[in-house]
Amino acid sequence: MTTPTPEQLAYVLRLADSALILGQRNTEWCGHGPILEEDIALANMSLDLIGQARLLYTHAATLEKALTGRERTEDDYAYFRAEREFANYTLVELPHFGPLAGTTHSSNDYAVTIVRNFLYATLMAHLWTALLRSADPQLAAIAERSIKETRYHVHHAREWLVRFGDGTDESHRRAQAALDWLMPYTREFFSTDAVETAVAEAGIAPLAAQLEAAWRADVEAALEEATLTLPAPVKHITTGKHGEHSEHMGFVLAEMQSLARQHPGARW
Amino acid sequence: MTTPTPEQLAYVLRLADSALILGQRNTEWCGHGPILEEDIALANMSLDLIGQARLLYTHAATLEKALTGRERTEDDYAYFRAEREFANYTLVELPHFGPLAGTTHSSNDYAVTIVRNFLYATLMAHLWTALLRSADPQLAAIAERSIKETRYHVHHAREWLVRFGDGTDESHRRAQAALDWLMPYTREFFSTDAVETAVAEAGIAPLAAQLEAAWRADVEAALEEATLTLPAPVKHITTGKHGEHSEHMGFVLAEMQSLARQHPGARW
Repeated sequence: MTTPTPEQLAYVLRLADSALILGQRNTEWCGHGPILEEDIALANMSLDLIGQARLLYTHAATLEKALTGRERTEDDYAYFRAEREFANYTLVELPHFGPLAGTTHSSNDYAVTIVRNFLYATLMAHLWTALLRSADPQLAAIAERSIKETRYHVHHAREWLVRFGDGTDESHRRAQAALDWLMPYTREFFSTDAVETAVAEAGIAPLAAQLEAAWRADVEAALEEATLTLPAPVKHITTGKHGEHSEHMGFVLAEMQSLARQHPGARW
Repeated sequence: MTTPTPEQLAYVLRLADSALILGQRNTEWCGHGPILEEDIALANMSLDLIGQARLLYTHAATLEKALTGRERTEDDYAYFRAEREFANYTLVELPHFGPLAGTTHSSNDYAVTIVRNFLYATLMAHLWTALLRSADPQLAAIAERSIKETRYHVHHAREWLVRFGDGTDESHRRAQAALDWLMPYTREFFSTDAVETAVAEAGIAPLAAQLEAAWRADVEAALEEATLTLPAPVKHITTGKHGEHSEHMGFVLAEMQSLARQHPGARW
């Protein structure tokens, strides 16, 4: 292995954190869905994402050990880092209840879940494909495994997106509202910073900005089929990948981390 | 297919309901476990159980149609039956918090989860094995698929049971308390009634009472390895399989059914 860089570690943790937090968010539907088949499909996709996160954390641990000598496990990354240390996209930490609903659990809106899964999985399909050629062979191997799962996630979300958008007035209205709410958060996917520039120069990952046109073409084709309208662009770019999160992130972490922190080092 | 009987339908629904309710109960850990690997293992086993329930409900729908002409789907059975119509063992509807804890979510005790999974999966390993030779070919096919999953569930629960029992004073105490609490509920596994007698006479299923000795031998061997003590037998036999449930069942159903009932016939 060539000597790892701090930017490489940061980049791998970004990928891991987005997968973990979205997987965690989607488990909120676990056992609550109104269709058994769909409940199981979504749970399986959550497990895919958490599985991807585990592989990435394990790889991050190797990089961190080589860089600093510090030994950490996947559980250390997931359960014992502070909010500021998580580098997921802001998009994936948002709740499912969306702009049209109240804030109670039962107001969760599956249109929000689907639109988010579609926007994120479509990005990841392009990103994992590019990462197949990563100069980091572990990352290329994780991409190889994850791309298959991700293609199914795109397929699943796209089918539901069209069903919602091209469905009843109510389902169309909910899908459009979810899209209007979530689309601005995707700007963060394509913003370039020092970490991404460094890994791009080292051949470890593509510049996400170079994937934007292909991503946008996929999104626009799906929206057309779903009879949904792309909202007007916004200027603001969210900053989850730099550790600056929305007010929702604390809730996700509390849910996910509280039990592990009550019993540090526990074996259940 | 030979003409189905009402007892055959009732029996298949019992199997389905126990798998569904335990799967549903175990999803309560989803995204809350203190170890990523274990969180995923338990979620996968929940999906196995819910998958078994779906196969059994689909089979039940065929039997019910042949018997009465009524058309029902797996979702109808899961989401639109009343508590009194569910025929799961009382054991599987109990909460995870057990006798030593309070009643809040964070008091859930993994020892309870593990002991219950062990007692139930050990029964099902014997039951699915016998059902491989069922005169009902659909049931035999479901057994064929389920036995592999169930063997893993036994293996997983048994490993944790020994780790808890033969672990620290605290983990031993929790495992013993869970066993003392849960063991009496297993009497229901082996009580014989008209439904079980009828399906046994038709060669559709074994009499569970005939599996008790083998089940007990497995349980006693595991408890010995775990340095746990079998509690004294009780006389009372719970009645979940006859639709008479504990006070905990309403909570499970509310969690599971509320969303589907808010949107009957919904496509999310």
